[in-house]
Parts: sequence; C-alpha cells; structure tokens
Amino acid sequence: MSKTGTIYGVGLGPGDPDLMSVRAHRLLGSTPHVAFFRKAGRKGQARQIVEGLLPENVIEFPMEYPVTTEIPLHDPRYNEALSTFYADVTQHLIGLAQSGQDVVVLCEGDPFFYGSFMHLYARLRDIVPVEVVPAITGMSGAWTATEAPITWGDDVLTVLMATLPEDKLIDHISRTDALVIMKIGSNFDKVKSALKAGGKFDDAWIVQYATMAKQTVTKLSEMTDPGTPYFSIIVVHGQGRRP
Amino acid sequence: MSKTGTIYGVGLGPGDPDLMSVRAHRLLGSTPHVAFFRKAGRKGQARQIVEGLLPENVIEFPMEYPVTTEIPLHDPRYNEALSTFYADVTQHLIGLAQSGQDVVVLCEGDPFFYGSFMHLYARLRDIVPVEVVPAITGMSGAWTATEAPITWGDDVLTVLMATLPEDKLIDHISRTDALVIMKIGSNFDKVKSALKAGGKFDDAWIVQYATMAKQTVTKLSEMTDPGTPYFSIIVVHGQGRRP
Ligand SMILES: C[S@@+](CC[C@H](N)C(=O)[O-])C[C@H]1O[C@@H](n2cnc3c(N)ncnc32)[C@H](O)[C@@H]1O
Ligand SMILES: C[S@@+](CC[C@H](N)C(=O)[O-])C[C@H]1O[C@@H](n2cnc3c(N)ncnc32)[C@H](O)[C@@H]1O
Repeated sequence: MSKTGTIYGVGLGPGDPDLMSVRAHRLLGSTPHVAFFRKAGRKGQARQIVEGLLPENVIEFPMEYPVTTEIPLHDPRYNEALSTFYADVTQHLIGLAQSGQDVVVLCEGDPFFYGSFMHLYARLRDIVPVEVVPAITGMSGAWTATEAPITWGDDVLTVLMATLPEDKLIDHISRTDALVIMKIGSNFDKVKSALKAGGKFDDAWIVQYATMAKQTVTKLSEMTDPGTPYFSIIVVHGQGRRP
Repeated sequence: MSKTGTIYGVGLGPGDPDLMSVRAHRLLGSTPHVAFFRKAGRKGQARQIVEGLLPENVIEFPMEYPVTTEIPLHDPRYNEALSTFYADVTQHLIGLAQSGQDVVVLCEGDPFFYGSFMHLYARLRDIVPVEVVPAITGMSGAWTATEAPITWGDDVLTVLMATLPEDKLIDHISRTDALVIMKIGSNFDKVKSALKAGGKFDDAWIVQYATMAKQTVTKLSEMTDPGTPYFSIIVVHGQGRRP
C-alpha cells in the first residue's frame, strides 16, 4: 500500500512570483497535483500567479465557488451552500492523499490570514497530513508599494474587513494608529464614510493589485476613478516614535 | 564615473531560510556588500539567518547599536544616541552606493513592519536609490506554528507592542477579536496581567523563535519556565464566522 500523501496549503504571497518563498517555489515545481479556488468562468487569481511554474504534467483541480455575491452574506443559505462545497472538495483532496498523492492548494497571500484555505484545513487536518507554508500577506505588498513604513515604535496596527458594520469600523478606525482595510469591493462607500468619521480619510492610501503588473497606488482623497476597486487594500501609516 | 549603487532593504522572513522570498535569496547570493544591525558582542539574529547564503567574498558591515537597555526608552539621551548612530551608518551606506556598490541591508521579518530598517530608509531615500523587499512577518511564522488560522470571516486583528502602557494594552486587548503582541522581553509580566484584565489570557499562545530550530509553542496559561521569553510573539486566534 502506498504512503498517504500530504496536502500542502501553500501561500503564494501578494502576487509577484518573485515574492514567493523558496519553499513555495520548490513545492509548486515538484508536486503532481494542484488545487485552487476560483469563481465559475474565471481563471482564478492564485492560478494566474503560478503560471509557468507548475510541472508539465500537473493535474489541476479547480474548486469553483457555488455562490459569491448572489446570496447575501447573512442568509443561512449562503453558509449552507459553502459548507456543502467545502465538504465536496475536501472529499476529493482526501481521496488523492489516501491514494498516495501529494497536492498543493494555492493560497493568495498567507493561508492563515483571512484565507479560504482554512475552511479546508479545518476539515482535513484530522484525516490526512496537512502542511501550511506561510507567505507574504497582501498588506505587506500594499504598504511596501506606498514606499513608507506601516508602523514605528509602539504604534497600534488594526486590520479591518470592510464587511464589518459601519459603526464598528468607525470605532476601530478612530482608536488605532496604523490601519489596514481589506475585502473592500462593494463596501467602498461605507469604508470611505467610516474613514471620514474616524478622522483618517485624508491620510489613507488605496493600493490595487499590490506587487502585480497592474498595481496602482493612490491617495484615497485624490482618487478620481468612480468605480469599485476590486483587488485592493486601504492603508493608513502610523506616525510613532522615531529617533 | 560609475553608476550609483542601490541599497536593498531585504526582509528575511521569520527565520527559516526556506521561507525567504525568491528575490531575497537571489539578492543575498549576488550582492557584494551586506549590512546588518546587531548588539555589541553578539553575532546578530539577521546575520545568523543568512549563514551560508552570502557570496564568498562578501564585505560585511555590522551596525552595532550604541545602547539598548542601559538607557530608559523615554530618556532623551536614548533618542540622541540612536540618532547619531543612524546618521553614522547612513553615511557609510551612502558612501558605498555613491562609489557604485550595491548593498543588502538584512532585515528580520518585513522591513516596513516595526523594523529598524525604516530609520535608515528615511535617511537614505532622498539621496541614493533604495529598494525594499517585503517578507513574511514574524507573526505569520508564529500563527502558522500554532497550527490554527489567526483570523476568519470579519474578525478584527490588533497588533500591539508590549512596550505600551498597561491601560492602553487592556483597552485594545478587550476590544479585538484576534491579537498579536510583540517586543515582549522585560514587559512580560505587564502583558500577562493586561491579557488577564482584557479577558484573553486563557486563549493566548506564546511562540518563541518562530520557524527556527529552537521554536517553542506554548499555551501561556501552561507556561512553566519562569524566565523572560526573548524572541517571542503572543497570539490569540479570532473565532469569526465559518461555514
Ligand atoms: C480573502 S482575503 C485573503 C488575504 C490573504 N490571505 C493575505 O494574506 O493577504 C482577500 C483580500 O485580500 C486583499 N489582498 C490580498 N492580496 C492583495 C494584493 N496583492 N493587492 C490588493 N489586495 C490584496 C484584498 O483586500 C482582498 O479583498
Ligand atoms: C523590531 S520587531 C521586528 C518585526 C519584524 N520586522 C517582523 O516583520 O516580524 C522585533 C519583534 O519581532 C518579533 N519577532 C519577529 N520574528 C520573530 C520570530 N521568528 N519569532 C518570535 N518573535 C519574532 C518579536 O516579538 C520581536 O520582539
């Protein structure tokens, strides 16, 4: 009987393949199976990052989200549909591992930092060997793109998801020194209004597609594009003690 | 006349050389000068991480801190001594760049995330070309070591330095979902007391030397070693929405 395979949750970093870890790079080039999340009909952001880095005969397993924006986040059907989906893809991955195959699951940024991989991890970890490879987060890519340190001395850093209610956003925005906001998309207007109420709008930057070819870095107050930024992070730098 | 050299602020990640980025790895192996901070008489943590990865004839520039714990943090002499030190080493780096030499400055974790490099960066950036290479943070290394995701759904993550006053620590600890505390050292007792007051002591983990050979992962409430943990990070995981 063959040895059980390992499922590797491999963080790819913010997008520039040159910012992948040496370990991630090696696993990508040597593992026979690669799995990745994507929306139906899309290529998948994570899959695009590794273009050209996979073995020639790699077997791909695209895991297509059943729902994304069609059902509201707090509708119980949203959770149900996702649960079924995670259970299904987990079964497939377990099958591969139990037949002795190693699998790389591609993760944007760091897998354990607001990643989708953790939903698989929780379901896999007691059944087959799972290893997580940490990575550079999207926010590190974003603040590096602004060419200024995010935190100095004893600055407090708060990371917020734009999906939070506006009053909660305002509360945290007004109490922190340095700030990162992610998952912006359709919450953009709410976030801008919360930043104004929290006194940080004028110091905020928005970075789209950090470290990728189409990266943009803009002061939020000088943004002219009326559209909703897609893959983007808002950053407010701390101003702590500095000798 | 030769072309001006570039100063590269290269993040090394949390410690395991295999977690360095492909770009960092390449720059380390191909740049003739390497500079790094260290305490007088020590080898230097960053320098140890790159052991065996530098070119054979590399020229090393150890930047030895003039003070660390001898003068209290809020004594004006502390800032003065550090300012003079940063100005001196900056002059040396500018000299190298202006004579056409590229220099790698080694940075633990991500250079722009509570790093010492930013003090050089602020002094160099208008004078010679400077490039920053982001990296995996120590905290990503730490939460990966705990084998559990740090944040789910719309969890709020707060990053605190143990050097903050206790009332400020308690305030932030009690309001956040997920928590990271760094720069612990001699502030360990204060931090433990703040975690108790903030209601998160029982859920806290302490990771020492994350991703390194001597890594330890311990529940804070089960820690028996009475000593002060040196290179360590406290982590409290978020418990957000999960399908
Ligand atoms: C589900 S979270 C995944 C975070 C990821 N695990 C990480 O470590 O950065 C998705 C959010 O990450 C942010 N993000 C990640 N990488 C990014 C990049 N390179 N540029 C802009 N935003 C990014 C966006 O805010 C996006 O909404
Ligand atoms: C001056 S800060 C530098 C942070 C670094 N730039 C980063 O991105 O993680 C130093 C603090 O980082 C934390 N740290 C960084 N890497 C660590 C590791 N591998 N293990 C434990 N603590 C670490 C410790 O709390 C230490 O006091």
